[in-house]
Amino acid sequence: MNDRPGNSSPFPARPTVVVAMGADEAAASLPADLRAELGTMARLTPGVLTGDLTAPEERTALADADVLITGWGTPPLSEGVLASAPRLRAVVHAAGSVRELVTSTVWSRGIVVSSAAEANAGPVADYTCAAIVFAAKKAIPAAAAYATGPKPVFLDREGADGRTIGLIGASRIGRRVLTRLRASDAEFRILLYDPYVTAEEAAELGVEMTGVDDLCRASSIVTVHAPLLPETHRLLNAERLALIPDGGTVVNTARGALVDTDALTRECLSGRLDAILDVTDPEPLPEGHPLRKLPNVLLTPHIAGAQGSEVRRLGAYAVEEIGRLVRGEMLRGRVLKEDLGRQA
Amino acid sequence: MNDRPGNSSPFPARPTVVVAMGADEAAASLPADLRAELGTMARLTPGVLTGDLTAPEERTALADADVLITGWGTPPLSEGVLASAPRLRAVVHAAGSVRELVTSTVWSRGIVVSSAAEANAGPVADYTCAAIVFAAKKAIPAAAAYATGPKPVFLDREGADGRTIGLIGASRIGRRVLTRLRASDAEFRILLYDPYVTAEEAAELGVEMTGVDDLCRASSIVTVHAPLLPETHRLLNAERLALIPDGGTVVNTARGALVDTDALTRECLSGRLDAILDVTDPEPLPEGHPLRKLPNVLLTPHIAGAQGSEVRRLGAYAVEEIGRLVRGEMLRGRVLKEDLGRQA
Repeated sequence: MNDRPGNSSPFPARPTVVVAMGADEAAASLPADLRAELGTMARLTPGVLTGDLTAPEERTALADADVLITGWGTPPLSEGVLASAPRLRAVVHAAGSVRELVTSTVWSRGIVVSSAAEANAGPVADYTCAAIVFAAKKAIPAAAAYATGPKPVFLDREGADGRTIGLIGASRIGRRVLTRLRASDAEFRILLYDPYVTAEEAAELGVEMTGVDDLCRASSIVTVHAPLLPETHRLLNAERLALIPDGGTVVNTARGALVDTDALTRECLSGRLDAILDVTDPEPLPEGHPLRKLPNVLLTPHIAGAQGSEVRRLGAYAVEEIGRLVRGEMLRGRVLKEDLGRQA
Repeated sequence: MNDRPGNSSPFPARPTVVVAMGADEAAASLPADLRAELGTMARLTPGVLTGDLTAPEERTALADADVLITGWGTPPLSEGVLASAPRLRAVVHAAGSVRELVTSTVWSRGIVVSSAAEANAGPVADYTCAAIVFAAKKAIPAAAAYATGPKPVFLDREGADGRTIGLIGASRIGRRVLTRLRASDAEFRILLYDPYVTAEEAAELGVEMTGVDDLCRASSIVTVHAPLLPETHRLLNAERLALIPDGGTVVNTARGALVDTDALTRECLSGRLDAILDVTDPEPLPEGHPLRKLPNVLLTPHIAGAQGSEVRRLGAYAVEEIGRLVRGEMLRGRVLKEDLGRQA
């Protein structure tokens, strides 16, 4: 597949690239060295468009743009915005999901869309596996108990060997989690629910496929890595959470709304389940919400993905994608309209 | 090297094996299937000696013992105890350190000693790497801040890429930590201090060697994996802790006394350093000790090593060692007297 835009005119040999995202985000994802690298293959418009892309000076910059590098802070590319960018051939998103960014006009114009979700997957997978190791040892409730009382005795406590990990979703992140769990020293049993993974792929991955209910019934740690879609909204609802055995842990580093927050809160409040949550629904949780402070819950503020020094990965990926565009190579992060029905 | 005992008589083809450790420990490390496996190659004395090995019935059991399987709960093998075990040829320790167990009489009798420290290394390394991933993202202070206030913003927060990890000690556990950090997605720089690792080995391990002071100066995460010896007691003293850059994290899954607890407490109380501690000095810490509850400290009750379902690993390793003894093969976990000067 050639990922050059489908319209008739050739993709410019030296495209004009405009960066549109928050200023802090641009500084973190596209530091000077990456901008310089970009400058070797494209005409990079100086500065960053940080507004809603409808102000006169933003419209002027967009008028020349062949490629737009976007990020978390970019507003939706509405028909009005796109009208100011008649030359636009590619949107290279230096972040994960393009769901909020890309409108139907982007698709109808035949604009190529690329996402750096792949570059975000490594940090999320690392973090998720760390959460699973902690969950397998019940580290969070053990620390909470030790904070106020006598030192718990190790023989009574839980080990990782023999635990069943239920993995919901094996696309970019879930697949990496799977690989890492397999490489871990612990003797985990791993179950997978993913309607898009074939029996053949599952055999290659060396994983046992199951329905989501059976997965919940059998797993002492359930970790979700599904995209948030209408059909995955509250995939872990009260009924399914109730299937997870006593003492189980729910790990969510994906999207808060994959889990019914109220139901999970009840399970954690009762002490029946633990949770390690990097995302919630709503996010942030209201101040004083029980999940913020329960001794059996570790709630972090959406830090699993690229942050701080890791944000550079997203910009680096975008620069690589533009290199591929310029050389007429296949994009690694291309997103097609039909993918949005199954991607985050 | 042949690890059969050095004295003249051949090692019995079917030795008598006596288990001496706590009853709970024996149940966890030597469940029925492992005892049955042992029974295929040895005469396993029924039951477990759970006392101090000086009671009349314990003396009677010891009288026949060719091999003793010991554990955390076994008292020191004093001259008096050993006098009751004239046939004893091997002590197979289904746990890590034999320092408290093995007396000079064991060595002077030429009794072979084996430790299951290797079997304990995997869980500790997994746990340590999880702690390092959390430390690299400042997950513990981030969770504490989020527990009571607004959601911290990700761009301000720390990432794993580019962080320098200072590894003190690269024997069984440290080496596994090193391998896993290299396999991680994060772009860590790794420094090693280990006086027993040669420049050649360091090159093979692909790690930068440094002095311990320079390691502290350069590392934002310092993790200790040294044995506790007179010369490593409080290796991380106040002066060295002070060298760690602001915002650094101390990880200790090894032995509490490798770190000056009071000095670390001051650094954590001031907020200059964070800590993830699975061991402390003293252990447990007194109730109400600040390290138990600080928002930038995760203190767990010595859970990194084999516990719960993982304790079986130690018994399985001991059974394998006895198999090697019976077959006259080299022991994998043999401990020599001279090793105790550099081993945990």
